[in-house]
Amino acid sequence: MTDTERLDDTAEEARIAPGGAPVPEAEDTSLDGLDRDRIERILDAVEAKDVAAVAAAFAPLHPADIADLLEQISTGQRRALLALYVDGIDGEVLSELDEGIREEVIEALPREVLAEAMRELDTDDVVDILEDLEEPEQAFILESLESDDRAAVESSLSWPEYSAGRLMQSETVAVPQDWTVGQAIDHLRSADWLPDQFYHVILVDERHRPTGYCTLGRILASRRDVPLTQLTEDSFLTVEATEDEGEVAHLFNKYHLISMPVVDPAGRLVGVITIDDAMTVLDEEAEEDILRLAGVNEESSLSDRILDTAKGRFVWLFVNLLTAILASVVIAQFADAIDALVALAVLMPIVASMGGNAGTQSMTVAVRALATRELTGQNTRRVVWRELVVGVINGLAFGLIMAGVAAVWFGVPMLAVVIALAMVATLASAALSGIVLPVMLDKLGIDPALASGPFVTTVTDVVGFFAFLGLASVMLL
Amino acid sequence: MTDTERLDDTAEEARIAPGGAPVPEAEDTSLDGLDRDRIERILDAVEAKDVAAVAAAFAPLHPADIADLLEQISTGQRRALLALYVDGIDGEVLSELDEGIREEVIEALPREVLAEAMRELDTDDVVDILEDLEEPEQAFILESLESDDRAAVESSLSWPEYSAGRLMQSETVAVPQDWTVGQAIDHLRSADWLPDQFYHVILVDERHRPTGYCTLGRILASRRDVPLTQLTEDSFLTVEATEDEGEVAHLFNKYHLISMPVVDPAGRLVGVITIDDAMTVLDEEAEEDILRLAGVNEESSLSDRILDTAKGRFVWLFVNLLTAILASVVIAQFADAIDALVALAVLMPIVASMGGNAGTQSMTVAVRALATRELTGQNTRRVVWRELVVGVINGLAFGLIMAGVAAVWFGVPMLAVVIALAMVATLASAALSGIVLPVMLDKLGIDPALASGPFVTTVTDVVGFFAFLGLASVMLL
Repeated sequence: MTDTERLDDTAEEARIAPGGAPVPEAEDTSLDGLDRDRIERILDAVEAKDVAAVAAAFAPLHPADIADLLEQISTGQRRALLALYVDGIDGEVLSELDEGIREEVIEALPREVLAEAMRELDTDDVVDILEDLEEPEQAFILESLESDDRAAVESSLSWPEYSAGRLMQSETVAVPQDWTVGQAIDHLRSADWLPDQFYHVILVDERHRPTGYCTLGRILASRRDVPLTQLTEDSFLTVEATEDEGEVAHLFNKYHLISMPVVDPAGRLVGVITIDDAMTVLDEEAEEDILRLAGVNEESSLSDRILDTAKGRFVWLFVNLLTAILASVVIAQFADAIDALVALAVLMPIVASMGGNAGTQSMTVAVRALATRELTGQNTRRVVWRELVVGVINGLAFGLIMAGVAAVWFGVPMLAVVIALAMVATLASAALSGIVLPVMLDKLGIDPALASGPFVTTVTDVVGFFAFLGLASVMLL
Repeated sequence: MTDTERLDDTAEEARIAPGGAPVPEAEDTSLDGLDRDRIERILDAVEAKDVAAVAAAFAPLHPADIADLLEQISTGQRRALLALYVDGIDGEVLSELDEGIREEVIEALPREVLAEAMRELDTDDVVDILEDLEEPEQAFILESLESDDRAAVESSLSWPEYSAGRLMQSETVAVPQDWTVGQAIDHLRSADWLPDQFYHVILVDERHRPTGYCTLGRILASRRDVPLTQLTEDSFLTVEATEDEGEVAHLFNKYHLISMPVVDPAGRLVGVITIDDAMTVLDEEAEEDILRLAGVNEESSLSDRILDTAKGRFVWLFVNLLTAILASVVIAQFADAIDALVALAVLMPIVASMGGNAGTQSMTVAVRALATRELTGQNTRRVVWRELVVGVINGLAFGLIMAGVAAVWFGVPMLAVVIALAMVATLASAALSGIVLPVMLDKLGIDPALASGPFVTTVTDVVGFFAFLGLASVMLL
């Protein structure tokens, strides 16, 4: 990160530690300032109970880096640090923290520090933190907010979880649609307060329903007498507060939106979602898919407690165990065949393993294509057909390869024929189940990333062992 | 998408099809207008060679939806469509298309349509398209650009692939750092041309080195005599043009940036990257990780040719075959044991399968934590230890369960002891290799998402079969 710099004057000020001692400049020009050295220095200072040194090391850090620090140290180190020094933990740090650790940190903060931290946040960040807390903490934080903000947060919390209403900030910049550039600029100049980040001025009708928006760039570049309606953007979209946040993120990504007004069922403006929140959702959904596909609880993180992690993984492994036992029951039906020819026991895991991997390939492609809306009602039939053909082609290829391997290894020509046929059947059924099962689960409203794996594995294991051992029983014995 | 609307006047205009016939309004209020009906209508019109009807159905579609349409129909349908009607394919549609299909579409476009399409794009989008084309097309497109744009595109192409220099747009809005709000506004009003989207005015020194930036919101809200240096943002970061685009996306996500100036090695402003481009990169990188973890070529898409897809999958399956054969060789060493007790053949896939799944869990967590920079030099040792403990805990749990199953099923108490011990050894080594191998590969500069799988599977298969069959040989026979 040596090539990134922060150069503005606020950062200069921040380099003066609360204790008054200037922090050495050379190593603090990087925003991503959380290197191993600094962590060591902070941990040493905590151990020595040297508050000034901790404060000095914290001072130049961005809230995201302070959050990283708290996540990367051990539970014991975190407790010691929080017992010594909480001034560096502001609202932004809290909103950057992983949920598990955030709860821990919130419990460690004195109530007045927590109240102050929450007051400085935008309402969407307050909502994001509040959602995950228990009743008493929620009530305390709500009480400590100013009445405007409290009303906004409560109204946001009234929308369903994972909805646009939860994701939006209630602070909007909206003006009557018949205003000119000059009126808008005067209005903004005289406003007591404006959101930290806003990219559009939203035009609303007399009933506060959004009818368009203008980028700030176009407003700035236009003469004062130009009506705002002449400057509105083509890509204007609104979303209802009840819409799923994943759908919202998809719209941002697809249409390259920067902000999107949120409306209530009557079409009135109630908030705005900005691209950085959409980016976070998109990132979380991809993360969720990756982890779910691997059978990891999607809410897990490296900072979870060991027993929670083990429990989360246990559930998935248990489902897998049932699948594996089912496969073993299939094998047990052919115990006589294995007794007669032990080569079958040696080769059978190859067939099942290839089936499992081919199934995972198809399934992952299908799950992602469903998530990104590339797999639609329109092209499902063609994609299923495509996967099946790919499965058959690779089944034939690996059937030939394994026939050669089996013939050379065991010198039984018929065994070569059996494994070749089993490979085609297994890879074809793997490809087919890999695409069909996720699509069916999706239609049933079940998350395909979460549920496809065990079904696909069951199909590939059962088909693999059954085809290989069954064909062997018929053709070899 | 019934709750999303586009209401601005430009959209109203767009609803009048080129042929002059007004498109029915009711169904065109949705931006995400690519429903099955419309696709059917377009395909029918293509078959009837009815250009006006195709044009009318295209007219209200967003470029992203036209791109989706081209991706979702079959190759034959696409050819027929492009042979009939290319007016709807503009630069934005091209930049939304998947690479494979984009090439096909570019070949189908008359040269003058292509040249016009490229001229209307920002330079970053031109670069994105140009990168993937062959020499002659590249040269033709470069020639057809205006000289300013050509220079900008050529300079962008001089930076390495997947670098910030390739991702940036050369069009920046920069003013001298000693200017006031009024000077900046006058400058913007008098500018011939401004980028489509910009969110900050960048302040530069006399050598054109960026020293800070102001959001347009703060400029708009301030009096004309306020110096811009009073309005600069805390989170100002610049990035060198040679920086990896994944690192850039990570910085956007971590620090909630909206735009980031790009500098050359001398620190001079050469372009700017905006959050929508960073969002695309982040999305692509997550997609890449998901697909690579499943052994799918990360550049594959649903619209690839079947043989290309089969070939891409073959490579990974072949690597898996070598792993599976290695596991079979291990099994073959214990042929006598299996001959003596066929229950071993029935149970051994359970041990290997559980190991494979536990290994995938650890590996996926590790690969993602490396990608998101949560797994660092600072916490590696603790995370490895944590995974190992989790593996041992679940190994004990499933060892007990399987001991019960084996005892009931086969009535051989010693077999229960053997499978319990094998389960602990396998799950512990799966957890350990699942975390250690990705970390090692990452240190060696090899993408852990791509390469971890086969190594982890080899460890879990070999350990699983060896532990179970080996212990059985010693303790049972």
